Amino acid sequence: MNFCSNCAASVDLHVPKGDSIPRYVCRSCNTIHYTNPKLVVGCIPEWEDTILLCRRAIEPRYGFWTLPAGFLEDFETTAQGAARETQEEALANVEINELFTLINLPQINQVYVMFRGIMRNQSFGPGAESLEVQLYREERIPWDRIAFPVVEQTLKLYFRDKRRGSFGIYAGDIMRSTDQWEDYQVSYLNDKEW
Amino acid sequence: MNFCSNCAASVDLHVPKGDSIPRYVCRSCNTIHYTNPKLVVGCIPEWEDTILLCRRAIEPRYGFWTLPAGFLEDFETTAQGAARETQEEALANVEINELFTLINLPQINQVYVMFRGIMRNQSFGPGAESLEVQLYREERIPWDRIAFPVVEQTLKLYFRDKRRGSFGIYAGDIMRSTDQWEDYQVSYLNDKEW
Repeated sequence: MNFCSNCAASVDLHVPKGDSIPRYVCRSCNTIHYTNPKLVVGCIPEWEDTILLCRRAIEPRYGFWTLPAGFLEDFETTAQGAARETQEEALANVEINELFTLINLPQINQVYVMFRGIMRNQSFGPGAESLEVQLYREERIPWDRIAFPVVEQTLKLYFRDKRRGSFGIYAGDIMRSTDQWEDYQVSYLNDKEW
Repeated sequence: MNFCSNCAASVDLHVPKGDSIPRYVCRSCNTIHYTNPKLVVGCIPEWEDTILLCRRAIEPRYGFWTLPAGFLEDFETTAQGAARETQEEALANVEINELFTLINLPQINQVYVMFRGIMRNQSFGPGAESLEVQLYREERIPWDRIAFPVVEQTLKLYFRDKRRGSFGIYAGDIMRSTDQWEDYQVSYLNDKEW
């Protein structure tokens, strides 16, 4: 941020009076420009004994497999956003069923909210951001080609709970150990054993 | 938003190519300025058979009672943010225990994430944004002086589950019927009977 979006004067990064965190503050109109983490919403689209994955047509992680998900938009709910992203990326119509994971990625200022969703019919296909979209049984999931740790974690919890016959709701954090995501730690508030 | 925070040129509100939603786009450097809903994080601080409420020293709803909660900051997790807000507003040290509610307020672009938290000791008091802070048993909760529907809903679910002897995790939406919040509708994905 270089300039004030209110008055176009230059901004200065400092801790405002009564605050404890540096903010961009306008040198002219004194507007404080707060920044906050973004919500990413998506779902696990279920069809009979399979789930739907999308192969990414965009960076980062071009060519890797992911669950449909994207930034929550103004004026929509998390469930509406998850259904919209599934329509856009996988051309699939889902009924959002239940919250499944809420996972913080504090190092990149994202909070993922993933639901379980039921496909209303077997119709699907690649949206603009997908190379291909495919239904997968657990045995065929391309584990070494999953785009993001948050997707890998959500899928692993999903198949574990599916085997158990009952789905929980999991809130946790994923932290990478280095600049890369190859090495990451995960912890959940309500599943210490994981 | 009037000006580009990148280059200070004026912005224009239109639907970018390949998008479906109007965005503020810079007329000079073409930066697209996305806006997204904000996460509000907080907790129900528990001490033995009571919970801790704060009376607001700021608008909106000056003088009304609320749970400690505020905007999630960059680089913190939702649980860290909830604990920080509890420290700031109620001067109370909590261990965040488990996710309790995720409630969308799409009309004001907020998503509330509320946890249950255990007070590490009986020490508490009014932070800068609180007039007073008090431990309440269920029978003494000032229901007609609660600041926000999202707090009222979280408290009602909390005491219902406490009576049941087991706490769920609830994802839902609150929509107001008019410009005011006196009249609102609530729905949960996993508790249709509520």
